[in-house]
Amino acid sequence: MNFSSKTVEEAVLKIAELPGIGKKTALRLVLFMLKDKYHYTEELVERISKLKEVRFCNECHNLSDEELCVICTSPKRNKDIICVVENVRDIMAIEETGYFNGLYHVLGGVISPLDGVGPGDLEIDSLLKRMSVSKIRELVMAISPTIDGDTTIYYLSKLVSADVEISTIARGVSFGGELEYADELTLGRSISARIPYQERTGN
Amino acid sequence: MNFSSKTVEEAVLKIAELPGIGKKTALRLVLFMLKDKYHYTEELVERISKLKEVRFCNECHNLSDEELCVICTSPKRNKDIICVVENVRDIMAIEETGYFNGLYHVLGGVISPLDGVGPGDLEIDSLLKRMSVSKIRELVMAISPTIDGDTTIYYLSKLVSADVEISTIARGVSFGGELEYADELTLGRSISARIPYQERTGN
Repeated sequence: MNFSSKTVEEAVLKIAELPGIGKKTALRLVLFMLKDKYHYTEELVERISKLKEVRFCNECHNLSDEELCVICTSPKRNKDIICVVENVRDIMAIEETGYFNGLYHVLGGVISPLDGVGPGDLEIDSLLKRMSVSKIRELVMAISPTIDGDTTIYYLSKLVSADVEISTIARGVSFGGELEYADELTLGRSISARIPYQERTGN
Repeated sequence: MNFSSKTVEEAVLKIAELPGIGKKTALRLVLFMLKDKYHYTEELVERISKLKEVRFCNECHNLSDEELCVICTSPKRNKDIICVVENVRDIMAIEETGYFNGLYHVLGGVISPLDGVGPGDLEIDSLLKRMSVSKIRELVMAISPTIDGDTTIYYLSKLVSADVEISTIARGVSFGGELEYADELTLGRSISARIPYQERTGN
């Protein structure tokens, strides 16, 4: 692209480093900021700068403004059940459903030898420490149903003492989905892992 | 969305005000900034902040770091031909082609009664002033081929003295395009505005 302003060019190139943002989109954003009459850009800069104040909850590693996040400090949450997730976005997604009322623990990824991610790179030690300090009844593994995800669940299951119940989120065909569009693996496994009809209403 | 951090929420909502950026994309960008280890976010903030130093060229209203833009000050450009465009993005697009070597003039839009844009809202006076100060031979109207664009071209043509040649960029079917996919209006007009075969190589 031909930029007549070095300042504009530098801003565009920097913004284009963001995931999913190309140069053309970056240029559109910069032109929007340049046209801005009502201090939008100043506010944007201020809010982005403030992001460095965001910390991660000392307990569950969720995004937080304080030492402990709003979920860990809430008196309404069930403290003896922990849902293990890969990242903070998964917490948002599960919270959105309104179906879970326990605590969370963010691993920060899954064990993935190909990507060079070992157990030491994940928040596994802090999970075991949490479980040794407070009485946990159940660990819900809300981990992606992939080879790496399954490896991570298996690894964790070996470390957790036997009196803690371990569950994984249900896997199978999507609600509202048509069988013919489900992939083979999902459909095949949902047949071999079929459940008695009476249980269908169990949450 | 459920945000466990007010700071994150505020940043996401602000970023989602950008054109074409929704809340989900904004969240992905914020999470990228939060993960950043190598001062990306600081650099981003710095470059966006610097945008307020960008000015518009005093002559042609193109983006510029100085009083006059690099095109207006270039000794290599043809100074007696001005290409009139709607916005700075059009300049970039035309410069990209490498087919134009004159100067530009950014109107800042087109006359659009429905959107409440009158001639007084556009940089028309400054164009006339430029033309009174320096000898301009030709005015190339590189304006969108819409009703509003045509109105603007007509309005300008009435203000410009008769010894200045006025041209519009060629309209017709796209190069490399298939006739059956051209819209009716474009195809119809390109038939009624057909050109003798010999002229096909003329630029």
